[in-house]
Amino acid sequence: MSLLVVGTTALDSIKTPYAENPRLLGGSASHAAIAASFFTKTHLVGAVGDDFPRKYINLYRKHGLNLDGLQQLAGQTFHWSGEYEVNMNNRQTLDTVLGVIENFSPTLPAAYTKLPYVLLANIAPDLQANVLDQMRRPKFVVADTMDLWLNIAREPLLKLLKRIDCLVLNDSEAAQLVEEDNVIAAMPRIHKLGPKYVIVKKGEHGSILSSPKGLFIAPAYPLKKVVDPTGAGDSFVGGLMGYLANQQGGLEKKLRAGIIQGSVTASFCCEGFGLQKTARIKKADITKRVRELTRMVDW
Amino acid sequence: MSLLVVGTTALDSIKTPYAENPRLLGGSASHAAIAASFFTKTHLVGAVGDDFPRKYINLYRKHGLNLDGLQQLAGQTFHWSGEYEVNMNNRQTLDTVLGVIENFSPTLPAAYTKLPYVLLANIAPDLQANVLDQMRRPKFVVADTMDLWLNIAREPLLKLLKRIDCLVLNDSEAAQLVEEDNVIAAMPRIHKLGPKYVIVKKGEHGSILSSPKGLFIAPAYPLKKVVDPTGAGDSFVGGLMGYLANQQGGLEKKLRAGIIQGSVTASFCCEGFGLQKTARIKKADITKRVRELTRMVDW
Repeated sequence: MSLLVVGTTALDSIKTPYAENPRLLGGSASHAAIAASFFTKTHLVGAVGDDFPRKYINLYRKHGLNLDGLQQLAGQTFHWSGEYEVNMNNRQTLDTVLGVIENFSPTLPAAYTKLPYVLLANIAPDLQANVLDQMRRPKFVVADTMDLWLNIAREPLLKLLKRIDCLVLNDSEAAQLVEEDNVIAAMPRIHKLGPKYVIVKKGEHGSILSSPKGLFIAPAYPLKKVVDPTGAGDSFVGGLMGYLANQQGGLEKKLRAGIIQGSVTASFCCEGFGLQKTARIKKADITKRVRELTRMVDW
Repeated sequence: MSLLVVGTTALDSIKTPYAENPRLLGGSASHAAIAASFFTKTHLVGAVGDDFPRKYINLYRKHGLNLDGLQQLAGQTFHWSGEYEVNMNNRQTLDTVLGVIENFSPTLPAAYTKLPYVLLANIAPDLQANVLDQMRRPKFVVADTMDLWLNIAREPLLKLLKRIDCLVLNDSEAAQLVEEDNVIAAMPRIHKLGPKYVIVKKGEHGSILSSPKGLFIAPAYPLKKVVDPTGAGDSFVGGLMGYLANQQGGLEKKLRAGIIQGSVTASFCCEGFGLQKTARIKKADITKRVRELTRMVDW
């Protein structure tokens, strides 16, 4: 079945201690939709400016994305620049230009409104809700978020949580959302805010799913070198939702397997700047790492 | 088969934001040997002062420890006091009294020298080497260490590494040992220093084994509340070695299963001050959590 992805479509300028890469293809929807495209037919909702390079549109197309929901507006594309510290865990935003995202109000193509799987990738909660308003009875809705929205749009986010099946966020965001440092204790509190499924991302330490069936503890695919973690969380949830949309069977089983597929998809994202590495892999590369990871957790 | 454990036998005074507990039974050998005792016959090598409470000797005996290698010397028992911050991850040493440990030179009872499994729990590397000198061809030797020895006894530690089968240390210690922040990249470098097996502990994030068969990524048993993590690493390696000593079969398989058993044993340690919770559990409690953890990683 098919997947809708809404989120940011951006240009990222990324500095690490080792290199500087200006105006890469970035944004939560770019990462998530391309990750999902390895698994299922994916429909992109977003807005870019008139400065958005043709080659990035071609990259979307190369991955078979349906772009009927991608608006090209007059103005600048959303642009984020950031810098990572040596350990790649801490990053600092150097500059943000909202550009066309600022007044973006997505109107979904009619065909999109019937899509069964919906990924509200990281973007303002109001925009996520706006997309959800236009959907007719989707089967499974996942939302990702970030600390920024916890700080400046807490109320819209809390409203949104009551309307989604699954929330994905990282450990520090989970702690901030319910004021509880212990992830295992935080998860039940997040369920009380709405979502039946909660996935907490822990970067190199993997992720944890809390569901009505209990906890699922998932490893990350181990990497000797992280080139650029930007978009890894988006790739994770994109791979997960792409897998979910494509598989038959019980939800819990699909979610668990999807988290592993998403983790592995995200591992490729970390191995190159922006989408450079992800854009070069094939589905078989993901499958190979999933097999390796399966052996690494067997006892 | 039987296990020898050498390490510190201490009194710990532990402060957390929630409570203060003076003169608890502590020390790496106390935690490791009691953890191991759930799995196999365990022999303790250590030294205590004449202030060491009788009740702690009784606790050792209750767990069936062989105490022929425990010396009671004139003077004070090794005493550590420390304080944990709110998140329980950072701790500060408030005071250390070496006491009888300062001039401790273990002489093993003859029967101990033939024990097949040896756990050199955290204590000065020279003392660990001293014990190893007295052993006749042990089957498998594991050493634990800590940042203190990396700082003040690096050379003796490096010498020891060439004589052991497996090194256990935490992620920050691994980074410090080979000057490499990425755990996955650090592990091959640690192998080059001697040990064929390396286990990196990551606290709540589990642990990673690097062996000739590749990596094994192990989860920690998830806890909603950590009361006091002191001794969790010692309990982990104690449970692991107790399991290893008790099982038949291939080493890799035993190590992987042993890491899970050790993780679960350590989870109980975190749920009480010092050994208070560990001393109250039975083998069946460990088995139950191992079953739960098995379900939590299944996909």
